Amino acid sequence: MRTAGACSADARPIAVLCAGGALPFAVIEAMRAAGRPFIIIAIEGIADPALTPLGASWLYLGQLGKLFALLRRESCTGVVLIGSMNRPTLGSMRIDAIGWTYLFDFLRNVRRGDDAMLRGMTRWFEVQGFPVLGVAEVAPELTAPEGRLGRMVPPREALAAAMRGFACLDALSPFDIGQALVAFGERIVAIEGAEGTDALLERVAELRKQGRLPRGGRGGVLLKAAKIGQSLKVDMPVIGPRTIERAASAGLEGVIIQAHRVLLLEIEAVVAAADKANLFLLGLKGGKGP
Amino acid sequence: MRTAGACSADARPIAVLCAGGALPFAVIEAMRAAGRPFIIIAIEGIADPALTPLGASWLYLGQLGKLFALLRRESCTGVVLIGSMNRPTLGSMRIDAIGWTYLFDFLRNVRRGDDAMLRGMTRWFEVQGFPVLGVAEVAPELTAPEGRLGRMVPPREALAAAMRGFACLDALSPFDIGQALVAFGERIVAIEGAEGTDALLERVAELRKQGRLPRGGRGGVLLKAAKIGQSLKVDMPVIGPRTIERAASAGLEGVIIQAHRVLLLEIEAVVAAADKANLFLLGLKGGKGP
Repeated sequence: MRTAGACSADARPIAVLCAGGALPFAVIEAMRAAGRPFIIIAIEGIADPALTPLGASWLYLGQLGKLFALLRRESCTGVVLIGSMNRPTLGSMRIDAIGWTYLFDFLRNVRRGDDAMLRGMTRWFEVQGFPVLGVAEVAPELTAPEGRLGRMVPPREALAAAMRGFACLDALSPFDIGQALVAFGERIVAIEGAEGTDALLERVAELRKQGRLPRGGRGGVLLKAAKIGQSLKVDMPVIGPRTIERAASAGLEGVIIQAHRVLLLEIEAVVAAADKANLFLLGLKGGKGP
Repeated sequence: MRTAGACSADARPIAVLCAGGALPFAVIEAMRAAGRPFIIIAIEGIADPALTPLGASWLYLGQLGKLFALLRRESCTGVVLIGSMNRPTLGSMRIDAIGWTYLFDFLRNVRRGDDAMLRGMTRWFEVQGFPVLGVAEVAPELTAPEGRLGRMVPPREALAAAMRGFACLDALSPFDIGQALVAFGERIVAIEGAEGTDALLERVAELRKQGRLPRGGRGGVLLKAAKIGQSLKVDMPVIGPRTIERAASAGLEGVIIQAHRVLLLEIEAVVAAADKANLFLLGLKGGKGP
């Protein structure tokens, strides 16, 4: 039952719809700390079973009828979609009657890439009256802040790499690829594709072994940003302590993160890893934005 | 001594300035077959010693004074710069008095990437009165023709991959990166950086092993094009039989080559390799061109 008034309107919950990985726990913890009401819905076969003791309701991915009914019953004011998900097989989805009506739209969007698929899902919720909120909205403290983050001070030429790198990632955005690249000064040597940031950094380490990096391999920077077209509501790029460790293994000098548009998981551990490896860590407003 | 008249003007040679690899031999052979006069100048420590029996004069990379004098003495009408070259060490260049006057320009350009370096070198020759000619000009039969090249017929959806892929490579051109990518339909999964086409294809093979390719891994295409800003006079992208073999190992369906702007080495062997692996091979005018 809904009660009137500004104060009690706040008590209506946001639904945290959880896929796999540790990210849902970070979001839940941040929302709890901020005192924002929420309910947890976890996807069967994908989300972490440890969500159960936190009070999660479990649903299969294809049970959209059940999902929308639950959101209405709980008077949810919006939905956060969070967590990792591989392309699901149809057999594992347990598609219900309502779910089937979305299937054609889903399959058409899947063909056009992650961005299109996620934008499509966002529309489904919005048409049902549940705005999709981004992590940046419900847990802004999880995103990268602006400015220097660790002990090491970024050299001035890192800004040249950042300017050129952000411009390059912007240019790639219409093609639904490129959330990260590695540059040595103004020379871009590697762009992230479907292989992900870890493999990107391994590739740079390999180029270093082969002596094929420009500038003698000095001053390399990992640049991580959100695609312009990327729906930050459902698919923010993420950096964690392991990213920093791999950047160090690749012999890089620092990591530049697009501020407010990249999730920074375990920020204390990330900063500690950067300080330990003598990497600078910098949050920058860059690129053309959303 | 120079003689007058249209006919004898043709007898003035073009200088083929040879760096490493097999490409200089292909160019020399094509020019010989076409009956075009040339002289061979080979770079010490970089070019193949087998150029000596063909009549090559040998010079160190830094001996620009000697080089320009030789070009004048032989009344050369232009220069072709051909072959592969790693970034040279200063110590190996034996820079002569004239060479030193270009060093600052060279080092400044090197920092800005391969494209800038090669454009800079092109200017040096042109200022001395020796236009730099491209392989496409002196040996056009070495470039990819337009149309289907092998036995396999490209499916219609390969054209969608080509359109989107060429547009993506065009967008990357200002950043001096991206001569190749791999797409599955409209989904681009990997973009070539400093690692080169071979490593790009290995990456796609790895994504396939991990089951991370879109569309169940069906219909992948390697797209190879020249950067817009790339000086085709000195740095054309190249495809050879090994490229085709690696594309087949990555499980791709075909290879699309930008016509007239990519060198196709050993074309019979390339077509045979494609036919053997059931890969389609297509030359397409694409991208915004030079």
